[in-house]
Amino acid sequence: MANLTPNPSFSLTIRFQLPNRAGMLASVTQAIAAVGGNLGQIDLIDRTRSIVTRDITVDAASTEHAEKIVQAVKDLEEIKVVEVYDRTFNLHRGGKIEVTSKFPLHHQSDLAMAYTPGVGRISSAIAEKPELVHTLTIKSNTVAIVTDGSAVLGLGNLGPEAALPVMEGKAMLFKKFAGIDAFPICLATQNVDEIVETVKRIAPVFGGVNLEDIAAPRCFEVERRLREEIDIPVFHDDQHGTAIVTLAALINALKLVRKPLSDIRIAINGAGAAGVAIARLLRKAGAEQLLMCDSKGILSTARPDLTLEKQEFASSESGGLADAVKGADVFIGVSAPGVLTPDMVKSMASDPIVMAMANPIPEIQPELVDGIVAVMATGRSDYANQINNVLAFPGMFRGVLDCRADHFTTTMYLEAASAIASLINPSKLDREHIIPSVFDERVVTAVSAAVQHAARQEGIARD
Amino acid sequence: MANLTPNPSFSLTIRFQLPNRAGMLASVTQAIAAVGGNLGQIDLIDRTRSIVTRDITVDAASTEHAEKIVQAVKDLEEIKVVEVYDRTFNLHRGGKIEVTSKFPLHHQSDLAMAYTPGVGRISSAIAEKPELVHTLTIKSNTVAIVTDGSAVLGLGNLGPEAALPVMEGKAMLFKKFAGIDAFPICLATQNVDEIVETVKRIAPVFGGVNLEDIAAPRCFEVERRLREEIDIPVFHDDQHGTAIVTLAALINALKLVRKPLSDIRIAINGAGAAGVAIARLLRKAGAEQLLMCDSKGILSTARPDLTLEKQEFASSESGGLADAVKGADVFIGVSAPGVLTPDMVKSMASDPIVMAMANPIPEIQPELVDGIVAVMATGRSDYANQINNVLAFPGMFRGVLDCRADHFTTTMYLEAASAIASLINPSKLDREHIIPSVFDERVVTAVSAAVQHAARQEGIARD
Repeated sequence: MANLTPNPSFSLTIRFQLPNRAGMLASVTQAIAAVGGNLGQIDLIDRTRSIVTRDITVDAASTEHAEKIVQAVKDLEEIKVVEVYDRTFNLHRGGKIEVTSKFPLHHQSDLAMAYTPGVGRISSAIAEKPELVHTLTIKSNTVAIVTDGSAVLGLGNLGPEAALPVMEGKAMLFKKFAGIDAFPICLATQNVDEIVETVKRIAPVFGGVNLEDIAAPRCFEVERRLREEIDIPVFHDDQHGTAIVTLAALINALKLVRKPLSDIRIAINGAGAAGVAIARLLRKAGAEQLLMCDSKGILSTARPDLTLEKQEFASSESGGLADAVKGADVFIGVSAPGVLTPDMVKSMASDPIVMAMANPIPEIQPELVDGIVAVMATGRSDYANQINNVLAFPGMFRGVLDCRADHFTTTMYLEAASAIASLINPSKLDREHIIPSVFDERVVTAVSAAVQHAARQEGIARD
Repeated sequence: MANLTPNPSFSLTIRFQLPNRAGMLASVTQAIAAVGGNLGQIDLIDRTRSIVTRDITVDAASTEHAEKIVQAVKDLEEIKVVEVYDRTFNLHRGGKIEVTSKFPLHHQSDLAMAYTPGVGRISSAIAEKPELVHTLTIKSNTVAIVTDGSAVLGLGNLGPEAALPVMEGKAMLFKKFAGIDAFPICLATQNVDEIVETVKRIAPVFGGVNLEDIAAPRCFEVERRLREEIDIPVFHDDQHGTAIVTLAALINALKLVRKPLSDIRIAINGAGAAGVAIARLLRKAGAEQLLMCDSKGILSTARPDLTLEKQEFASSESGGLADAVKGADVFIGVSAPGVLTPDMVKSMASDPIVMAMANPIPEIQPELVDGIVAVMATGRSDYANQINNVLAFPGMFRGVLDCRADHFTTTMYLEAASAIASLINPSKLDREHIIPSVFDERVVTAVSAAVQHAARQEGIARD
């Protein structure tokens, strides 16, 4: 497994004191650089005639690496480390989101309108005309981010409490990218019936449900049942968000290699929530040759251990990942670090496209296949072509909320993917630019418009 | 039933055009005053040589009254009503609260700390040491406002959607008065088992549960069971919030009439959530003679229809409200508009104290007993001595969250009441000032300190 590069998730701030003499700071920065720390901001905190106090921000590659960096500074003569802050931990203290009023309550008259007795008029109006809940309450713009904590990031079944910081982060993304108010619902149950029942019971407050980090195959049934049983849109982001952005990237990658989707052979490694959803959406988009693998190899009709979802993609072929990849035009990985080797990539068809999206460490490090692949994409922000769900989910929900569609449809997914792909102008499309940046402000509008267009075509828009 | 006075909950903004001539505006304000509208702000919107456009804000007493006011303006010659806004409805469009980030996400490095991959380190840390959820997530400062919509304000069983605007308003109060992030959970069930089960399942995200607008007697069992089954504090505000503030007011009122709590006779009308909780807390505070009535009269041991909670206060006496009130030192009403008559008040002991807290219309209008009562209090902001739960619940939750107590105790309620009462300096205590204003900034700190003091004394503070 390749070493990780330093990144802000292991960012430290080291506060240290050094003699007020020329050249002293250089000894610190040199020591940090020598052990591979990535230097960021350097602040002056205090200066006396003899002593200078500074804060220096350093990105490390891991917890161990961070400790090594601090030790390197401590080992310097005449330098005193006063304190070490872990910036990521500091940022999380007290949580990352808050619930605020949209307008201030200064006077008794504000209270009389926003709370009793004025609010009673609003309650009565909604009781008389239930439809009004969509305009006079937060339901119009609020999404529940629901998890059971069973598949937290790539870390596994950590439970609802450990999932909470991820859901808070997701809520920040909803607000930042789509102005949507999202709130974490981390459930103390991993039973399908109980999950479904609980979400149904809390549904009155919400205009949509984003399912997150729920393990396969449970996630499929939870989503299917909620779609049937509640009247607000339900979206399992690990499935559809990933599928939409993958399809968007693939559309553009195929333009570069001039191959039509219907003609190519695609090997997908990983048959969890994301893998199954990607395979389903690619089929709807016109892909005809899909070969899917899980950790035991190709999903072969001969295997007795396949879940219902895996059976959908069972093939007459069998073998391992190397067999699946041989001759393939596209590799899509939503699986595990380092499972794809350069030799496997060399066995692919000409101009191979590799989308290695395991997080945080991809199925193959891009450096290893430089010059071999036609297009390379990962889930990481430090390489070109980041496949990131944040390109999809904010606009998807913005779209259904704004047109009041009561569910998501496959047409919406397809149109959203096509809308994202279309944002890369043909003149700018190249192997390192197949997908917009997550900070591209056009994305949410394009996706939302695509969703609303599809909803109107399909007759499910209510606004 | 007495007429309501105009108030901001029926506040209108009327936009109208009038000839640009002296005296025209006066005709409008006179017309509004003539039908009893309460004039507020008057804005100039536009002025041409011949026409002036203005917005005028008017408080009405009811919807019908508002219509009458608009009609009075429409009836004027040369005045054209352009538009009428209902300010309370306008304020509610899109909801009153939002979920926001505590810090901005500008760069990829912000994402890498607040979301993936950095957040994975926080999730792992919590999975290893579950205690950390209390410091590294919103759980440290977040309260669920849970309702089943069965007793929304005084309006009855309007259901969860109609309850939502009230819960949003409550969330605003939590933030405004205690800096607490509260989120509405409006349940699509009114079954005790299902309510308890649902709250248990969503508990991981929250540091406390505020039960709200759940009908008696269901509310008693829901609270009792949740207190047993979850490890975060549970508080039914309609019970304990009301009881705490009532006791605080009574402590000060009794100082004025120089009667000790243990000697007086108290008649409580209303045996729902608030009535029962008030009676229980008054007993704990030392009250010995309590007579309670419901809509059928005194809770008499002879009655076969009493719930368990009502049986706690069953008396050998029987009769109607008039019998209960005769000779009483204190009347406490948490019941229905206009049920207490001046004659009943005249039958009370000397220096009677009347706390008529039915909302929005009290058991007796203060004007009717002016000169008869020693102290009068209501739930309304337009009379002296407003008994308002907002004096209690923000500080109660601030207290348990800050010292990490896992439940509320009766000692906390008693100390909080005493702390609120003590904020009225003896030199300022008079019959119109027995309780602090809801905008008195000392209240939340005093209540929180009282709660934390009690928690430490009782050994249940964990921080």
